Amino acid sequence: MSKRTIQIGLCGLGTVGQGVWRHFNRMREELEGRLGTKVVLARASVRDLKKARGVKVAASKLTTDPLSIATDPSIDIVCELMGGTTVAREVTLAALSRGKIVISANKALICAHGAEIFAAARKGGGHFLFEASVAGGIPLIKAIREGLVANRFPRIYGILNGTCNYILTKMEELDTPYASVLKEAKRLGYAEAQESLDVEGWDTAHKASVLAWLAHGVWVRPEQMIVEGIERITPADFKNAAALGYGIKLLGIITRDFETDEIVVRVHPTLLPEGSVLAQVSGVFNAISVTGDVVGTTVYIGRGAGQDATASAVISDIADAVSLLLHGKGAHLMGEEGPTVPKGVRLAPPERIRGRYYVRLTVADLPGVLARVATIMARNKMSIASVIQSPSEEAGLASLVLTTHESDERSMRRALRALAGLSSVRQKPLLLRIGDLGD
Amino acid sequence: MSKRTIQIGLCGLGTVGQGVWRHFNRMREELEGRLGTKVVLARASVRDLKKARGVKVAASKLTTDPLSIATDPSIDIVCELMGGTTVAREVTLAALSRGKIVISANKALICAHGAEIFAAARKGGGHFLFEASVAGGIPLIKAIREGLVANRFPRIYGILNGTCNYILTKMEELDTPYASVLKEAKRLGYAEAQESLDVEGWDTAHKASVLAWLAHGVWVRPEQMIVEGIERITPADFKNAAALGYGIKLLGIITRDFETDEIVVRVHPTLLPEGSVLAQVSGVFNAISVTGDVVGTTVYIGRGAGQDATASAVISDIADAVSLLLHGKGAHLMGEEGPTVPKGVRLAPPERIRGRYYVRLTVADLPGVLARVATIMARNKMSIASVIQSPSEEAGLASLVLTTHESDERSMRRALRALAGLSSVRQKPLLLRIGDLGD
Repeated sequence: MSKRTIQIGLCGLGTVGQGVWRHFNRMREELEGRLGTKVVLARASVRDLKKARGVKVAASKLTTDPLSIATDPSIDIVCELMGGTTVAREVTLAALSRGKIVISANKALICAHGAEIFAAARKGGGHFLFEASVAGGIPLIKAIREGLVANRFPRIYGILNGTCNYILTKMEELDTPYASVLKEAKRLGYAEAQESLDVEGWDTAHKASVLAWLAHGVWVRPEQMIVEGIERITPADFKNAAALGYGIKLLGIITRDFETDEIVVRVHPTLLPEGSVLAQVSGVFNAISVTGDVVGTTVYIGRGAGQDATASAVISDIADAVSLLLHGKGAHLMGEEGPTVPKGVRLAPPERIRGRYYVRLTVADLPGVLARVATIMARNKMSIASVIQSPSEEAGLASLVLTTHESDERSMRRALRALAGLSSVRQKPLLLRIGDLGD
Repeated sequence: MSKRTIQIGLCGLGTVGQGVWRHFNRMREELEGRLGTKVVLARASVRDLKKARGVKVAASKLTTDPLSIATDPSIDIVCELMGGTTVAREVTLAALSRGKIVISANKALICAHGAEIFAAARKGGGHFLFEASVAGGIPLIKAIREGLVANRFPRIYGILNGTCNYILTKMEELDTPYASVLKEAKRLGYAEAQESLDVEGWDTAHKASVLAWLAHGVWVRPEQMIVEGIERITPADFKNAAALGYGIKLLGIITRDFETDEIVVRVHPTLLPEGSVLAQVSGVFNAISVTGDVVGTTVYIGRGAGQDATASAVISDIADAVSLLLHGKGAHLMGEEGPTVPKGVRLAPPERIRGRYYVRLTVADLPGVLARVATIMARNKMSIASVIQSPSEEAGLASLVLTTHESDERSMRRALRALAGLSSVRQKPLLLRIGDLGD
């Protein structure tokens, strides 16, 4: 047993912070036995000192100033569990510049300031650990960085947002519109009061950005990706998809072509073959398919959020951090600075992405409409694979669902603009993508 | 970059050894960049120096004496990839006693001599890494040991043998008897010429033993488990199971009751609800469900065997081993000696295991048979949940499938013996277990 006592400070004692506090203290003795040293949760910062909390923390350990924890010389490990990208950034940089280890669940922060954060860690001799930032309790970061170190990654994709997966699952199961399911999800605490970060795909984009960096060593911003959300999907889309043999999932997808060395990162609702493992993953679960060039495809499933799952990931980072502290900085963070990036790796222009499409049009139920739609598709060299026409819920309107053979985004977008301009097309067309991702 | 060059010796240059050789050398430069030191495959042992191989190895690096590699002072890391439990054991102990790091894919060896091996590692100051021994390329050992370090594990179960899963998948898909599928699997190289280790469940038992040790710190031998294989399953069983809403998978199951501190380890074909993720995993893939008390259930899917998947796991162990060598022995092998075992943890007697059962009887197609069968079940306090009677393939015989409500192994075995003694029961009854394992 080392004589040193490792001191941890938690910046933020909300849902995740309280989970870490509770689970860490419950199993502290066992962890200390495994790690060979004493480890204590020494300090925590909160917004309101007087607020009642689910965990008991001595008043002497609490502060309202997270920066005072990040700069405290007695603190070895700082867990940044506040969220946000302003104070969280300051706290993170302050701790790293002092050579501390920072543990973070903050994907928005990493996505926005990752390059700066990792540079600060290198310069200050600290480390930045982020297992909890993607896929909650699933040890996905460790799997990609250490377990699959022998691999390059032509494709990583997955269900990265439990809120969206919960909403999609309920819409399908209960045949209920998006708005009602969202309301219920908010009531149950599965969706935030401000839902846009989740349902519009931005949270998934932040996580895809972290994974793209981890696998390929490049920072891709959400504005460089295709990012589409789930708000416009209807119960009818699930029926159409099922008739075609698919389920619908919101996916973050990172692909790399090792011949051209082009990377594509995108987030969109995707039709997945019903028999595929990811199509079976329902409710708040996350699921990620990681294809390595040596190992083939591996899949990881688990709870992507929540107090306990996130605490599990943060505590595993604490264990790694303690190991680093005991055995010398730099001891075991292979790939912490991202993989070696072969020169010339670059983002593929989104308009060149190829795939198959699902387009739902709400059209006037009049003769000649299908002909006009088909003509526009043909003019844009989009080859139609199937058509499902069904009455719309509104009188006098019909729903027209087309699927296409493989084409590219440029052609599809052109066709979509032309379709939207037709007088017989009465709502903005809905575009979904068909995922021929294999398993 | 460290000035030291790490030297690796491969004992065994068969399928897995050649995979390691090829993939390691292909990505050596990138790995060295990440690890910060030079790493070379310095020596390899083979049975026959003259045999043609898929990889080119300089004659000066080859030997027929694996022990000479294990005892070579210039070798830092020994990969034991020969298999077997005699020479492999000698090589492993010789290397560990000299403080080297041994990397192994040999679950049979670990199951038989694990306690001795880990003791030798402790005593000699070496380390024993075994990511490739369970679930092939899936980084499952790392996930349990490091990624889920915050957890205790009430339940771990999974498809751990790709050969069996391939056979079961094909039997179901093609409605083909076991013997024909096995023959085809041998032809394709998915089954060994000597198939008993796989199909009788022993390989799964070895892997379950490794997982039980990793999660609970106890060594459980196959003879202390229920171990049943897949040889007596017929295509009709898949139809019956499907009619009841189940698929059939050979599972290794490790459960622990933290109230009584009893552990159960068992291997048997299991009826899994059709909608469950593991029931969807087909072909040579492995899939493991790991339930932690903090994280909840996580699932891991991937190729469980084969040259490339196993090489991927061995190379990840090489990376960890190099890290250990550079940063001091003992640096980062949390739980290498197994978790701290609370005193009093013990194996539950198999006869107390509770569960639901599926029993298939081949009976004379005569009046009164069902009554006799039902009487025996009632006498043994087995409550019948459903009955499927169908004509057997043989004239004059019928197939009678019973499922039961929850009972225990003792009652079920007694009933089974009595059923087997009935003159109207014409073949040994087939017992399968219904897995109410959750997901």
